[in-house]
Amino acid sequence: MAFSFGNQLKVSIFGQSHSEAIGVSVEGFPAGLTLDMEELQSFLARRAPGQKGTTPRKEADLPRFLCGLTDGRTNGAPLTAIIENTNTRSRDYDQLRRKPRPGHSDYPASVKFHGCNDIAGGGQFSARLTAPLCVAGGIALQALRQRGVSIHAHLLRVGEITDRPFDPISFSKEEENKLKTAAFPTLDPAAGERMQQRIERARLALDSVGGVVECRADGLPVGVGNAGYGGLDGAIAAVVFGIPAVKGIAFGAGFDAAQKAGSETNDPFYYDETGAVRTRTNFCGGILGGMSDGMPVLFTVAFKPTPSIARPQETVDLEKKENTTLCIQGRHDPCVAVRAVPVVEAAAAVAIYDRLLEG
Amino acid sequence: MAFSFGNQLKVSIFGQSHSEAIGVSVEGFPAGLTLDMEELQSFLARRAPGQKGTTPRKEADLPRFLCGLTDGRTNGAPLTAIIENTNTRSRDYDQLRRKPRPGHSDYPASVKFHGCNDIAGGGQFSARLTAPLCVAGGIALQALRQRGVSIHAHLLRVGEITDRPFDPISFSKEEENKLKTAAFPTLDPAAGERMQQRIERARLALDSVGGVVECRADGLPVGVGNAGYGGLDGAIAAVVFGIPAVKGIAFGAGFDAAQKAGSETNDPFYYDETGAVRTRTNFCGGILGGMSDGMPVLFTVAFKPTPSIARPQETVDLEKKENTTLCIQGRHDPCVAVRAVPVVEAAAAVAIYDRLLEG
Amino acid sequence: MAFSFGNQLKVSIFGQSHSEAIGVSVEGFPAGLTLDMEELQSFLARRAPGQKGTTPRKEADLPRFLCGLTDGRTNGAPLTAIIENTNTRSRDYDQLRRKPRPGHSDYPASVKFHGCNDIAGGGQFSARLTAPLCVAGGIALQALRQRGVSIHAHLLRVGEITDRPFDPISFSKEEENKLKTAAFPTLDPAAGERMQQRIERARLALDSVGGVVECRADGLPVGVGNAGYGGLDGAIAAVVFGIPAVKGIAFGAGFDAAQKAGSETNDPFYYDETGAVRTRTNFCGGILGGMSDGMPVLFTVAFKPTPSIARPQETVDLEKKENTTLCIQGRHDPCVAVRAVPVVEAAAAVAIYDRLLEG
Amino acid sequence: MAFSFGNQLKVSIFGQSHSEAIGVSVEGFPAGLTLDMEELQSFLARRAPGQKGTTPRKEADLPRFLCGLTDGRTNGAPLTAIIENTNTRSRDYDQLRRKPRPGHSDYPASVKFHGCNDIAGGGQFSARLTAPLCVAGGIALQALRQRGVSIHAHLLRVGEITDRPFDPISFSKEEENKLKTAAFPTLDPAAGERMQQRIERARLALDSVGGVVECRADGLPVGVGNAGYGGLDGAIAAVVFGIPAVKGIAFGAGFDAAQKAGSETNDPFYYDETGAVRTRTNFCGGILGGMSDGMPVLFTVAFKPTPSIARPQETVDLEKKENTTLCIQGRHDPCVAVRAVPVVEAAAAVAIYDRLLEG
Repeated sequence: MAFSFGNQLKVSIFGQSHSEAIGVSVEGFPAGLTLDMEELQSFLARRAPGQKGTTPRKEADLPRFLCGLTDGRTNGAPLTAIIENTNTRSRDYDQLRRKPRPGHSDYPASVKFHGCNDIAGGGQFSARLTAPLCVAGGIALQALRQRGVSIHAHLLRVGEITDRPFDPISFSKEEENKLKTAAFPTLDPAAGERMQQRIERARLALDSVGGVVECRADGLPVGVGNAGYGGLDGAIAAVVFGIPAVKGIAFGAGFDAAQKAGSETNDPFYYDETGAVRTRTNFCGGILGGMSDGMPVLFTVAFKPTPSIARPQETVDLEKKENTTLCIQGRHDPCVAVRAVPVVEAAAAVAIYDRLLEG
Repeated sequence: MAFSFGNQLKVSIFGQSHSEAIGVSVEGFPAGLTLDMEELQSFLARRAPGQKGTTPRKEADLPRFLCGLTDGRTNGAPLTAIIENTNTRSRDYDQLRRKPRPGHSDYPASVKFHGCNDIAGGGQFSARLTAPLCVAGGIALQALRQRGVSIHAHLLRVGEITDRPFDPISFSKEEENKLKTAAFPTLDPAAGERMQQRIERARLALDSVGGVVECRADGLPVGVGNAGYGGLDGAIAAVVFGIPAVKGIAFGAGFDAAQKAGSETNDPFYYDETGAVRTRTNFCGGILGGMSDGMPVLFTVAFKPTPSIARPQETVDLEKKENTTLCIQGRHDPCVAVRAVPVVEAAAAVAIYDRLLEG
Repeated sequence: MAFSFGNQLKVSIFGQSHSEAIGVSVEGFPAGLTLDMEELQSFLARRAPGQKGTTPRKEADLPRFLCGLTDGRTNGAPLTAIIENTNTRSRDYDQLRRKPRPGHSDYPASVKFHGCNDIAGGGQFSARLTAPLCVAGGIALQALRQRGVSIHAHLLRVGEITDRPFDPISFSKEEENKLKTAAFPTLDPAAGERMQQRIERARLALDSVGGVVECRADGLPVGVGNAGYGGLDGAIAAVVFGIPAVKGIAFGAGFDAAQKAGSETNDPFYYDETGAVRTRTNFCGGILGGMSDGMPVLFTVAFKPTPSIARPQETVDLEKKENTTLCIQGRHDPCVAVRAVPVVEAAAAVAIYDRLLEG
Repeated sequence: MAFSFGNQLKVSIFGQSHSEAIGVSVEGFPAGLTLDMEELQSFLARRAPGQKGTTPRKEADLPRFLCGLTDGRTNGAPLTAIIENTNTRSRDYDQLRRKPRPGHSDYPASVKFHGCNDIAGGGQFSARLTAPLCVAGGIALQALRQRGVSIHAHLLRVGEITDRPFDPISFSKEEENKLKTAAFPTLDPAAGERMQQRIERARLALDSVGGVVECRADGLPVGVGNAGYGGLDGAIAAVVFGIPAVKGIAFGAGFDAAQKAGSETNDPFYYDETGAVRTRTNFCGGILGGMSDGMPVLFTVAFKPTPSIARPQETVDLEKKENTTLCIQGRHDPCVAVRAVPVVEAAAAVAIYDRLLEG
């Protein structure tokens, strides 16, 4: 299945980029959870377009809750929200059924669905479908906070520009607040400035640029997740790869660990002053044997550059069966990683809350 | 669930490192598949210990098939194989319940299972559990080959030593054969030599070293996989993170894509001489929108250094509730990535075949 | 999970009796299926209230399709439809949180959900939730017909009044048409008349009456379903028990088989004039070993009497913690089995199509 | 999938009637559960052949636990047990691939699996596969008892002979003990005598006879199970239909409810002397809205007569493609319902424990 996932928290996402509406239905939130709708709106606003370095398209993205809430609290029934699609310009996409866009799903989708797929705006493959994920994730974030767990992400890299990475051990309230209120999602505002310039340069060059999002989850109890194929890392990865343009995920030291010695990457345990078991370093990214070890869970996600670029590109004409050239019209984020920051948080929230509910 | 996974190919792995037996039960192989037992044995031998750079422990790892086969062919019933555990030295592990090994699952497992978990040999968290995965994967590889799909992996990196990467477009029969028969799993024998020396150096230093495995799947039809959370990349990732010591996975250009422009990483489509649609480059790793695009599927997997090292390490004494030092005895691979090469192939085979069966 | 089910056809139902909207999202319909919306409307109209022997409440039940369709054809994305709830009178239900209705879910629901459940109209336990099941089932019926499979149900029994049972072997086109166009869902119109009188009698006595629905599926190929816990019978049962008020299900000779000899209930195989293998009798209800055997699949479903009756009933006051009496207001079907006839068809269609897609 | 089921308690059964071994792997038992192996053996002995009215075949059915236990306690890893198949006489089944047995799965199985299925002893369709279900169920029964839940079944009917039904409200310790130690599983020993004579009469007539098993679960807390398609009734039904020869299941008043009025079948709530909410009657079988209501859960299961009878029967010759006659050799229970009594308990235990673990 493409859009149904989760074990204890069953998420079913639906919609296409230009369908009448998109939405999500979630089973598994415990009854009695009070939803803070304003907070949810703020969270959704972080992925909405119109920010610097993103597309000028307007999407209100106000979810309408159809069911699952009684007097503002979850009532144990599936929680379903839809977002009406109002601002769609399907004419932009007429030629794409014939001429698949490089780097996009158009070609394999047309083969898989025998040409019956919805091509407009990328159909079900559109990043627009991350909006309902953020609805589910935004609620999961609220549910997690009630259990003492918080999740934060920032833009670690855009092209060759890098932000300061998260401290793998501690995350101060001050830093958390600064990140939350930052106009651009970096820990270091100067890095953010340079990233925005880098993105603008890509845009002016009719090009795009990739990026890396780093995410942390603090406050998880020890033992969340499972051995084998039920690990917290695998669960997060499975959801994260549902976000369009993701090309990689790594936990803790990640690919760098491959170049290290065990004496360098083993995280020594010790008792801290409160009597809690902690590790002095956190190269494992807070996960041992698929389970949380009590330290912050840390991972990075690689996003490829937006494949929709305004330059002429080589492709094929599937009707004429010949090689041709394509010019993509329309408005596109030159760097999908920017708006992906809250989406990664949402993905992590959904995956982690699912494992936390396993108890 | 920790050890049950797959949608169309339902894999249930069982066992602990030192339990009486370990094994796997698989539902979903079509009836009538003839198994080549010798080929399966050869495949399993590739992950067996005793090779250069691996542990001297002997594991025969001969699976005994309990059911699911009639006259050497799958019969439509669950296919179950067990491997008896004969060479176990549980006394090595007596102190570990008290003193969790850094970089291992001991600590979160003891919290999660209230001390009831099997600590011997890592219990259910042991890399020994990759043997039944290889039984399932080895059969999936045979089933895939009948569908024209082949899967190969090699050791791309050990510490700072790198092998030549796969050509992202083509894989010659000659190269395939050389890799298959190589004593050490690299494309470039010289790189293999240097890696073995690097591993031996780690061993002599009472240390260990990480590595990266690169894997390719050739021959997949277009459109295998799904949009959203049903993608081929997510499916592979979910199984791969079930392999112990994995810290990251990346497809195609992976994390490098984050530093590139769209004009660099978009793979232009063209018609080749046979009239097939292909791409001139393969930065997407053969996957667009979660679906195979007809080009080789390519991904890399990062393995951390073996956490079991013979040096004294800081840890805690969970009984005395104080900091202490641990010296791990026993025989351990200084680089888990070596034996992980066929395991990554098995993981990919199981995940890809599962998606292929979706039709 | 309560409202997500299916393996190949993933159905997620959402909504409460009086929530803003109810609906269903379905993954797994093959792309390219043309929907006949008029036929779907006719099907939905059969379960709508306002018929003889049913509640006078008006429910338009016009589904609005949000996504999953392009130019009237399924496009491979989740197919989602919602039905707005416009005619709700929640004031009818104010006292029920305190005084649970006998025969209803009120009491266990309030315990399970700590009083946070939506009590209005029965909330998520309402038979109103069968409307979205009928949307999914109505589409599955169309998909099944394209595969040569048809499903029909009738009211076999209301109280002591019985309709003529289905012929277990053949179902003439004439009979099929008569049943389809019947104002009341019986094979024998005279039995239907008597049933309606029986229901009216119950209504006038401020009471209700139970019933039995019989269902058949014709045209299934041999071998649909599976051994063990994947059987066609178990799959149908699992969905049918999701219909409120169902208390039993039986296939073929069902409970009568318990009183018979094997020589009476074994269905002898023979070659018919077309060279097809058939059975002379059909006591097994078309299912052997969990698989269709090529004969009509036949089963009956028992519905309890509507628990909402207008007579005073004993119950408890959960606030005062004392015994009390309850008088239920509102308009209720005196016999839920009448409107359940198409619901059983929908349940069967969804379950059978799911197994058929397994291939 | 045919042999993998359960949400929180994941059961994977494997084996064929005459394969080397059969077995079960279960994930989800909490770590730290102490197993009483003797009690498990006693439970398994109840379904073993050799009792009065059952086949004279000997099956030791001693499970060998491969993993999942450490020092006699569950350790959080999958719990896997196998039973070696030692006493198989496959020559009995040689002709069956050509001449399918009426009332058996032979014909649809040979179509579904293209003749590759294991025909010996019924292969994966054999009632022998209920032995591993009983291993899983026997352990679930022990886990349930620690939560205050007990499950008991008896033979309610064989042909026209009926046992006294369970009291729907109470089940005395005395009655429980009498049932446990009864040589034949009836509440009324005289009824048991007549049933055994009835079965012997069937055997002498080269025939078989059907039966009904009644099952109860006492001690469930209120609210176990779910709305919609996650109900306790549907969960039990789904597992029960995995038992060979089952043709129907009904809860509480079941099919009789269809003939009753609501005023007769609604179960009035009241406070008992301990302040607990109870119902005065139990026509709903302890389930309202898919959830336990605090009263005993009660259901009946219909078993068809053993299809293997020694009389000549009409069938087809699939090779010669002509009608023919079949004489089944071998030793078969004339009434499968007798040995099915503990199997129904096992099925109920697995289904109920699965829902109980949902919390």
